[in-house]
Amino acid sequence: MEHAAAPISLEELNRVDREGFVAALGEVFEHAPWVAESVFAARPFATVDALFRAMTAAVLYGAAETQMALIKAHPDLAGKAAREGAITDDSKREQSSARLDRLSEEEFAAFHRLNNAYRAKFDMPFIICVRRHGKDSILRQFEKRLQNDNATERETALGEIFHIAALRLDQRVAGPDRLKVHGRLSTHVLDSHSGRPAQGVAIEFLEIEAAGTVRLLLRTTTNPDGRTDKPLIAGQPIPTAEYELRFAVGNYFAREKAPVADPPFLGIVPIRFAVAEPEAHYHVPIIVTPWSYSTYRGS
Amino acid sequence: MEHAAAPISLEELNRVDREGFVAALGEVFEHAPWVAESVFAARPFATVDALFRAMTAAVLYGAAETQMALIKAHPDLAGKAAREGAITDDSKREQSSARLDRLSEEEFAAFHRLNNAYRAKFDMPFIICVRRHGKDSILRQFEKRLQNDNATERETALGEIFHIAALRLDQRVAGPDRLKVHGRLSTHVLDSHSGRPAQGVAIEFLEIEAAGTVRLLLRTTTNPDGRTDKPLIAGQPIPTAEYELRFAVGNYFAREKAPVADPPFLGIVPIRFAVAEPEAHYHVPIIVTPWSYSTYRGS
Amino acid sequence: MEHAAAPISLEELNRVDREGFVAALGEVFEHAPWVAESVFAARPFATVDALFRAMTAAVLYGAAETQMALIKAHPDLAGKAAREGAITDDSKREQSSARLDRLSEEEFAAFHRLNNAYRAKFDMPFIICVRRHGKDSILRQFEKRLQNDNATERETALGEIFHIAALRLDQRVAGPDRLKVHGRLSTHVLDSHSGRPAQGVAIEFLEIEAAGTVRLLLRTTTNPDGRTDKPLIAGQPIPTAEYELRFAVGNYFAREKAPVADPPFLGIVPIRFAVAEPEAHYHVPIIVTPWSYSTYRGS
Amino acid sequence: MEHAAAPISLEELNRVDREGFVAALGEVFEHAPWVAESVFAARPFATVDALFRAMTAAVLYGAAETQMALIKAHPDLAGKAAREGAITDDSKREQSSARLDRLSEEEFAAFHRLNNAYRAKFDMPFIICVRRHGKDSILRQFEKRLQNDNATERETALGEIFHIAALRLDQRVAGPDRLKVHGRLSTHVLDSHSGRPAQGVAIEFLEIEAAGTVRLLLRTTTNPDGRTDKPLIAGQPIPTAEYELRFAVGNYFAREKAPVADPPFLGIVPIRFAVAEPEAHYHVPIIVTPWSYSTYRGS
Repeated sequence: MEHAAAPISLEELNRVDREGFVAALGEVFEHAPWVAESVFAARPFATVDALFRAMTAAVLYGAAETQMALIKAHPDLAGKAAREGAITDDSKREQSSARLDRLSEEEFAAFHRLNNAYRAKFDMPFIICVRRHGKDSILRQFEKRLQNDNATERETALGEIFHIAALRLDQRVAGPDRLKVHGRLSTHVLDSHSGRPAQGVAIEFLEIEAAGTVRLLLRTTTNPDGRTDKPLIAGQPIPTAEYELRFAVGNYFAREKAPVADPPFLGIVPIRFAVAEPEAHYHVPIIVTPWSYSTYRGS
Repeated sequence: MEHAAAPISLEELNRVDREGFVAALGEVFEHAPWVAESVFAARPFATVDALFRAMTAAVLYGAAETQMALIKAHPDLAGKAAREGAITDDSKREQSSARLDRLSEEEFAAFHRLNNAYRAKFDMPFIICVRRHGKDSILRQFEKRLQNDNATERETALGEIFHIAALRLDQRVAGPDRLKVHGRLSTHVLDSHSGRPAQGVAIEFLEIEAAGTVRLLLRTTTNPDGRTDKPLIAGQPIPTAEYELRFAVGNYFAREKAPVADPPFLGIVPIRFAVAEPEAHYHVPIIVTPWSYSTYRGS
Repeated sequence: MEHAAAPISLEELNRVDREGFVAALGEVFEHAPWVAESVFAARPFATVDALFRAMTAAVLYGAAETQMALIKAHPDLAGKAAREGAITDDSKREQSSARLDRLSEEEFAAFHRLNNAYRAKFDMPFIICVRRHGKDSILRQFEKRLQNDNATERETALGEIFHIAALRLDQRVAGPDRLKVHGRLSTHVLDSHSGRPAQGVAIEFLEIEAAGTVRLLLRTTTNPDGRTDKPLIAGQPIPTAEYELRFAVGNYFAREKAPVADPPFLGIVPIRFAVAEPEAHYHVPIIVTPWSYSTYRGS
Repeated sequence: MEHAAAPISLEELNRVDREGFVAALGEVFEHAPWVAESVFAARPFATVDALFRAMTAAVLYGAAETQMALIKAHPDLAGKAAREGAITDDSKREQSSARLDRLSEEEFAAFHRLNNAYRAKFDMPFIICVRRHGKDSILRQFEKRLQNDNATERETALGEIFHIAALRLDQRVAGPDRLKVHGRLSTHVLDSHSGRPAQGVAIEFLEIEAAGTVRLLLRTTTNPDGRTDKPLIAGQPIPTAEYELRFAVGNYFAREKAPVADPPFLGIVPIRFAVAEPEAHYHVPIIVTPWSYSTYRGS
């Protein structure tokens, strides 16, 4: 779910007039084109990161009421407006990334209840950078942040707005540098029965939801290097969530004519793990024989 | 699901009269007290194994028609007779061990179809030592053995009858030795973060059925040695089936105050494996840190 | 290097007269039969541990001068008296356990220098329970304890005397219990190429000295369980030292006809580790294929 | 030990006249500029590999006497000529790579004996591509090839000449492709105690000779990625030999304040392995905690 338009180069952005500048960046902060306007005079920007820091500084050094207005301009998560489509395109894309546009009635009710409790306590909408979380993680954050005091929560909301802005900016502007908004999840299968990468191992990659639901994200197969041709996740944050990789090593060793039992001791090897740093590199390999395996978090 | 009566000692069995002898052993072979009778004269037996070998020899050196009569005296698996309770108590207990007494209508129909096909081809009931197999494994054996020729299948049926007889004999007679009819499944959790056995790790032990059904067999917790107080399975064959152990290592490391991520990289560690040798010792340990683990089939 | 005479049973010890009692236990504390005498009246002892606690209490609750006299009754480590054989038989056996009776001239000079420095500072001999340490560990303790103040060092010396006494008592008295003075070092080789214990793997067990010297302690071979018939060390403390196990896995896999490279990737697998708890159980296994292995401290 | 002169580009080589062509390639085959001359007419070559295949074809399709003359033009290994410096510069550099220029008198005598036995049997010098072997491996090959028959050994000698030629050609000509004459040896240290690459682990890389001699090849330290800044070996074949990596993990975990024993269970972790494919990529990592580690051959 990417930003539709092609990104503008930083070079060009440094050249366009105020109108063009705001057209390009006005939506980086939700309903707040003033942020883009306020940094126009600071051009040229040498890097996308410099531009991003200028924009966040404009918010951080703004008046408390301005910050609160920015916060309040955000829609409820999985709220009525979202359900009726009455939110910005960016918000729509973002909320759909965590499947908030496909909630069951029960889940919708849970969000409704939490939104109300949150508004009642803090008098503002609950803001979270949805692309950095799975649905369970959003609910956990919701419950947790309801315990915060006002000052902490205002700060937390601004932090989330900056995460959202960084991702939006990254999609809109191409510069010599790249904001550190993307994680990467990769795997590898090493056959230590024969001392070489395992080729042709079928892999399923799933998200495990707290309710026990298992959602297939991807099916793939290892190449001659024992890797997948593309990372399992790249070019986006890895949503904080629980995942499972299932490696069909039984079929692999049968094809390789390794001596195995019938049925094989290891058929499907499931590796279940959670991601807690959406912008990090997670490498989750297995080193496997017909009778043993090991795994670890690499990077 | 054990034999109800207390076992007789081999010593006593060597002393009782023919009637007592046949009363004790007459049901070891289904509807075939003649096997017990035929070995009465060979008393005394020094070991249970010697007794068992005498009984199997009586069958193996019998006439072909006698062997076929023995085979035909067995009930259908999950058949009409079983459903209506019209089978021996031993058979009832055995069939219930693989939950053949709790089949869905679809499964019952599958068994019905296979029983008919088998009878049509071989003119005898399909015999398998049910205690050595999970339901899926029985169905796989059924399909596989339907491909056999008559001679092979007759031999296979006798082999299964001997497996059944060995288990029945083991439950009826206590001697200085024990027939090798029992497997053993154990586990161990080693915390290699702190270099000692992991105490208090919650474990779920499940059977995984081909249809995706997961059946909880046992919940337990590791003791100060990192082991379970009792083996997961002992004193019986380990049914050929696919199993999963789920280790709650996330909770363990949180309690141990090991530095973990939020959510922890490893919450539940699932180890899925199949048993192919019901009488063997399977030791399936994990060696685990908050960021890695390995497992292997030990013994 | 065991105590020569057969141990007396606790039962008998509870029955003998004062003379017999002191004859049996008089040498448990070096040149201090009064310790044995002082607990004679407390008979009978239900366990060896109760006896041991009574003897240590007699020392601990004694006068400071009595304690110091006990300390001073000990010979220098690797000192002139030891060199000339003018020490008790127990001391001789103990000092030889760490090869202090076979020092090079340089090592003898180092001990001489440390003994003098220690006497100059504390006015007493350096006491350490030699059976719990390799030579390097003794030297490290020597250097370290030279930094202590008088009170700490007097307490440390008594603690060492109790370690020595426990080992002497354990060799002299056999009771219903056993003092916790023995460690245990074992190993195991699991062939996870073929999923079973590795039989016939030649093992060398060595002590590594800081100077780089390597001393062969034992040559052995794995049995059908992948273990050694006897533990590598048992029935004594494991001296604090650095060790190396060398497993000839290349020859093993060649005999097993596993497909290996020429020369094999793994020929000798060396596992180097140090023991820091002489009374603990160290289990140091390898799980190995022709292309990989892992090890860990088990127990 | 690299070829001194800067390589010529394939493009230029395709343009120069016959004299320049032979000047550039005349020494690729020892004392056999005719090989270069014979492929001059086939220019231009699209790749270095095409050029190499043309040169080897010229030898392979040549007359048997020509081949034998080529073979006989090679000097003895560690022979008198080599000792006196009376061999080509290429040969000098090559022989020194396996330290054949620094043999002990005993080793020199062994080579002398083998050279004589080989010449007596085959009437030609023993040829081996020295850069692909450690000294022990050369001696093993020598003994092994002495068992060959004449035809096999002639073929083997030509194969070795092609290995030598490929390495010489690779150093002389730079093209769009690269001949597959280089291996690569790398390592990695993953700290699975804290779930990240281990930075600052001191590593010693050694060659282990059969006689027990250990030769330090390199000292290095892991960088923030847990890798070494440069591969342990790259840009050359990895000589077939036995190696040992020694990782100072005890110091690392002490610096990281991981709770370790005193002395630490793991101080130096030695990983001993042999290379059998000089042109392959060997990745030999460790995954380590204060109490466990694993290693495997990766690529």
